[in-house]
Amino acid sequence: MSEFSREQIDTVYHVIAARRDMRHFLTDPVDPQVLARLLAAAHLAPSVGFMQPWRFVRITDRALRRAIHALVEEERVLTAKVLGERGDEFMRLKVEGILECGEVLVAALADRREEHVFGRRTMPEMDLASVACAIQNMWLAARAEGIGMGWVSLFDPVALRALLRMPEGSRPVAVLCLGHVREFYPRPMLEMENWAQRSDLDKLVFTDYWNERTTPEKPA
Amino acid sequence: MSEFSREQIDTVYHVIAARRDMRHFLTDPVDPQVLARLLAAAHLAPSVGFMQPWRFVRITDRALRRAIHALVEEERVLTAKVLGERGDEFMRLKVEGILECGEVLVAALADRREEHVFGRRTMPEMDLASVACAIQNMWLAARAEGIGMGWVSLFDPVALRALLRMPEGSRPVAVLCLGHVREFYPRPMLEMENWAQRSDLDKLVFTDYWNERTTPEKPA
Repeated sequence: MSEFSREQIDTVYHVIAARRDMRHFLTDPVDPQVLARLLAAAHLAPSVGFMQPWRFVRITDRALRRAIHALVEEERVLTAKVLGERGDEFMRLKVEGILECGEVLVAALADRREEHVFGRRTMPEMDLASVACAIQNMWLAARAEGIGMGWVSLFDPVALRALLRMPEGSRPVAVLCLGHVREFYPRPMLEMENWAQRSDLDKLVFTDYWNERTTPEKPA
Repeated sequence: MSEFSREQIDTVYHVIAARRDMRHFLTDPVDPQVLARLLAAAHLAPSVGFMQPWRFVRITDRALRRAIHALVEEERVLTAKVLGERGDEFMRLKVEGILECGEVLVAALADRREEHVFGRRTMPEMDLASVACAIQNMWLAARAEGIGMGWVSLFDPVALRALLRMPEGSRPVAVLCLGHVREFYPRPMLEMENWAQRSDLDKLVFTDYWNERTTPEKPA
């Protein structure tokens, strides 16, 4: 039994299904109160050993925003080269809306994370997992608020760290574009653009051992 | 403007705030239809380059569950040793409910991820970020459904990979405990147990450059 009603549960599933990685934005500003709520939602994420490794840098300086965009553009070209035969197709995709969106945040891992051992002795990367959960909280809250968000990871993290004067040991993990949108994509943009197709969930769920399956249940 | 009502938006924030990393479970089974909905919610997560790197192994064999528990117990003892003066305090914490909970899932990164370059040339760890977003989707959906979930990362990933006959190149990232609970903790268990305190969000949000701040907005 849940204290949430069936309608409330359905709302959560609806928001999860309607959330999109947005790259097209209107330039209207994001209400600072909304931004504050989104950051508060991020901060309510789980974190390994309750270490709360997330940090957020809000970019208000237009020159700094342009410098971040330039870093992304540089990496976009380098990625296209590595992609070889899919490079041209990649270059035709819109991969970010950094210059248009209402708000840019850089999400990062704090420095001095080596002090946190709980849940990380064998799995040090759990700090990144915690930041990703924080970003997903923000993404879903933004979607509910009608605000689009995109996660850009096309950048050299060392260069971005230097640009934002981040300390040794910290690491930027996302350039987050937030803003109003004309509409949310009906399906993931990379699916609509035929970059990739959604996998069949049945093929991703195993029973007891890798690649072993029993008849899966379907959601009603 | 959002197509969601203020009440619906509040529901999303409410679920985000009420979600807990659970370690205490009732042994009642999880409705297979609910489990299927949670997995479907996970699969709706964002993923870098739409690579969908997540895999889930549902553990139905009790002996296998006990073997996973034994791996976690082994790592718990090793972690306590590394923690030094906080080792005894750590050993008194309940860190998992693997043997009690209704369902155990192992979440993993698929093998052959090196084929995916989009958004990962300089940031290969974005595959883990995608799996973490999938797990957070599942966590929030579970919370809405009144089902508790805990993420256990106290294990040797190489040993767990071998146990579940996972291929070279794949990596388990979470032992997920799912199940009914007597009650959800009112605050994070590690906060209630004084392991760590919640950070002040104002200290985690910067403006333009690391450690630089302007007067922050507060959520209304």
